[in-house]
Amino acid sequence: MRVSVIGGSSVPAETAAVAEELGERLANRGHTVVCGGLGGVMAAVCRGAANAGGETIGVLPTGRCEDANPHVTTPIATGMGHARNALVVMNGDAAIAVDGSHGTLSEIGMALAHGRAVAGLDTHDIEGVEAVASPARAIDHVENAV
Amino acid sequence: MRVSVIGGSSVPAETAAVAEELGERLANRGHTVVCGGLGGVMAAVCRGAANAGGETIGVLPTGRCEDANPHVTTPIATGMGHARNALVVMNGDAAIAVDGSHGTLSEIGMALAHGRAVAGLDTHDIEGVEAVASPARAIDHVENAV
Amino acid sequence: MRVSVIGGSSVPAETAAVAEELGERLANRGHTVVCGGLGGVMAAVCRGAANAGGETIGVLPTGRCEDANPHVTTPIATGMGHARNALVVMNGDAAIAVDGSHGTLSEIGMALAHGRAVAGLDTHDIEGVEAVASPARAIDHVENAV
Amino acid sequence: MRVSVIGGSSVPAETAAVAEELGERLANRGHTVVCGGLGGVMAAVCRGAANAGGETIGVLPTGRCEDANPHVTTPIATGMGHARNALVVMNGDAAIAVDGSHGTLSEIGMALAHGRAVAGLDTHDIEGVEAVASPARAIDHVENAV
Repeated sequence: MRVSVIGGSSVPAETAAVAEELGERLANRGHTVVCGGLGGVMAAVCRGAANAGGETIGVLPTGRCEDANPHVTTPIATGMGHARNALVVMNGDAAIAVDGSHGTLSEIGMALAHGRAVAGLDTHDIEGVEAVASPARAIDHVENAV
Repeated sequence: MRVSVIGGSSVPAETAAVAEELGERLANRGHTVVCGGLGGVMAAVCRGAANAGGETIGVLPTGRCEDANPHVTTPIATGMGHARNALVVMNGDAAIAVDGSHGTLSEIGMALAHGRAVAGLDTHDIEGVEAVASPARAIDHVENAV
Repeated sequence: MRVSVIGGSSVPAETAAVAEELGERLANRGHTVVCGGLGGVMAAVCRGAANAGGETIGVLPTGRCEDANPHVTTPIATGMGHARNALVVMNGDAAIAVDGSHGTLSEIGMALAHGRAVAGLDTHDIEGVEAVASPARAIDHVENAV
Repeated sequence: MRVSVIGGSSVPAETAAVAEELGERLANRGHTVVCGGLGGVMAAVCRGAANAGGETIGVLPTGRCEDANPHVTTPIATGMGHARNALVVMNGDAAIAVDGSHGTLSEIGMALAHGRAVAGLDTHDIEGVEAVASPARAIDHVENAV
């Protein structure tokens, strides 16, 4: 299935490591990563997935595919700025949030509004988001929920 | 100024009363209401503002201006569904959240991502949202912040 | 009713004069102008309408209401770039094209796709666009068609 | 490179055959098809490309990936209706129009507004669109122009 991975665009190394592991595990389980296509959690999850041979879709805020991080296999330009957040979660069957700030919060809200299951790794404490302790648990949760 | 009022599309009578008072006070202080144009908090705040002679802009998820509640003085059709939430907050100088569920959460996230001051009346407990006890206090907060 | 006025963002003085007359006549007949909110035909039609006491809605490609020309009475920020062209025509009951290049062509296509009547003043020769000789004739056409 | 293929959503068999040949040739030359993801020219070009082992991206007007035609290898849901036309052309390095009505006209306008080279097969006669006689010639034109 497709899993939207949402999270901060600028994160510390340990958070990036979690996101990279998440990407690798998603790819190994045959899932496609959908994300916002830029840096931080987005780049790390794409790197993990792409290195494991997985597909990664980056739905960009800008109008230029060249703005995607190098691990995005299918960049989608939108030119819509933050409004593209709605498309990031709409294009996944479920969502996993890693860390993240206001943009991530808006994506969590959108994901829940679209009825998507959402797992959270060290992210906002929101009713409806399943807080999990590891990338493997996050994938378990969304696989079971879909 | 323009104030984005965000909140549930289906709310109990007491919440609607709070939103209506908020609309009336915003209009009396010379502010324009921006909202999502539909029911619940959106209809109540528009009713309060319009009855006090204020302007109300409704940024609709549908492509039809006729879908606006009857108290919207300027309906804007978008046909973009939930993605229009980004436009609701982008078009206000600040935001006030009243109650609300997932869609409201996404709008709070968007408002904070756009650097808008946000006051909250009985809504999500989010860092960056100033929890206030009354419509008057909500307006005080956003007036001081802008 | 609302009339979307579409046209070039940089036009010679005689074209601007036509657009300004169009705006004045639309306002005098009680219609609201909807446009893209920027310069050229957009600024001229808004100037004509606003000077005659009319309302003008500017649906901007940028995310900043401050980018509207000074004759827009209700700016709407979208941050969507050219994709906002769809909203410009969706928010009018009919459309009038004045001069214009590629962006205008896309708006004519969108207007026709949405089933709007379209009058054209010295613009693209497209089947479905009623070529007219004056602003007054353009308004006659769209009034009769709606 | 990526080539946006735009055209009618309901076309006669001979037009579909042209679109299918175009898709096959694009895939054989190593290009990815970007289109609106639905029927008519969109389905035919995707069928041709996918049967030749090519990639096809369908940028849908609806919010559901399931609405894509069966030959789309990467559906992208937008929920934006006709406003997604801007994204169809933004995501190609060039565009080829086949037949088509108002929606296609809007996409031609958008493509030209974004500075994309456009080849046309039996489509609107628009300045800036290179009218060509065959799918092979259309691909030649956009390959040379990019």
